[in-house]
Formats: sequence, C-alpha cells, structure tokens
Amino acid sequence: MKQVIIVRSDLGMGRGKIAAQACHASIGSYKKTDPDKIREWEMEGSKKVVLSVPGLEELMEIYEAVRRTDISHYLVRDAGHTQIPAGTVTCLGIGPDTDERIDRITGELKLL
Amino acid sequence: MKQVIIVRSDLGMGRGKIAAQACHASIGSYKKTDPDKIREWEMEGSKKVVLSVPGLEELMEIYEAVRRTDISHYLVRDAGHTQIPAGTVTCLGIGPDTDERIDRITGELKLL
Repeated sequence: MKQVIIVRSDLGMGRGKIAAQACHASIGSYKKTDPDKIREWEMEGSKKVVLSVPGLEELMEIYEAVRRTDISHYLVRDAGHTQIPAGTVTCLGIGPDTDERIDRITGELKLL
Repeated sequence: MKQVIIVRSDLGMGRGKIAAQACHASIGSYKKTDPDKIREWEMEGSKKVVLSVPGLEELMEIYEAVRRTDISHYLVRDAGHTQIPAGTVTCLGIGPDTDERIDRITGELKLL
C-alpha cells in the first residue's frame, strides 16, 4: 500500500511551497479513502512517494486516468497567496491504495 | 487557523523527500486534532505553512515547547528507506490550531 503525490515541476515552486502543496494533496486524498484501506496502509508504515510531471497536461492525463478508477484522489488548486496565481493546479494526491493499482496509473513517472 | 510543519534543513534531503516527510507530519498531527478545530481550519482554507530549523537541537526545543501545551503535534522519525539513516527525526507537525497559539511557539522560525 502507498500514497502517491504527483507535483508539477514547471511552476518554479520552492521546496517549502512544494511541501505545503503536497500536504494538501496528501490529506485531501486520505480523507476520501476507505477506512479499511487506511488501516492496511498504516499497518505497513503509511508509505508516501512523491513523483513529478513536467507540466499541467501530463498531470491532467493522470487525473483523467485515476478518475476512471475507484482509487481515491485529490487535485490541488492553489489559493494563490504566494509564488503562483490563484487557481493554479499544482499537484495530485492518489491513494492510499495497493502498489499494483497505483503503479498501473503512475508507473512511468519519475521521483521528484 | 493554520497547521505548521517544521523541517530540519541540515539533513540534505531532496525536495521530494522533504515533501514526503512533511506529509507524514501533516497527517500525523491532523489525526490528533480535535474535530471542531479541524472544521474551523478547513472552513478557512486549511492553511499549511512549512518552516525550517537548522538542526535536531532546535527541532527538539520546539517539540518540548509544544508538548507543554495541548496543541496537537506529531514528530516524524524516518523509516530510513532512502537518503537518511532509519530513526532520524526529520520534522514536526503542529496543529491545526489558532495562528496566535502556534506563533507563540514557532514565531521566530523562517520559511523553508
């Protein structure tokens, strides 16, 4: 079991900004996950993996793919207080779910 | 209302590693927070702020200070799969709680 956070690498966000956006995605997707899956994920150590995409188009392709499944997910649009314009899609949280199911969608992506 | 994540800047962690550790802290502290505070925080936009400390000593000083309050918090020890030795304290999640209560503890720290 794992949770994956996919971050756009083209926005010039600093590492603190990236971390805050990833936390939005992580909690957002966590809250939409079935409690049985949460328990299983936590028993295995709550693994979280942060991946990157080069831009919005690639992120939305992943988003459309995950929407066609029943895997929990959460798309983050930034409130725009700092660094980037309001409403910018910054990242996507997926899961927790099984490694196999998530890899089918995100398997090609690189670590951030 | 806000949640604060405090990250050690001396561990040489990459931005993906930092983001994953911050997510551990964020969910860990979130889960220990009173539901009424969660609701209030979410209604205000679930603000998250990522701060830094130069090392372990400074992080543990903040940890000891927050432990003397009833503010929710969660100290992250890394499982050590990547980049750093197992058991390394990497970051601390605090809140969500009111800005004023959290600033009393973290007010001197810089953004990551």
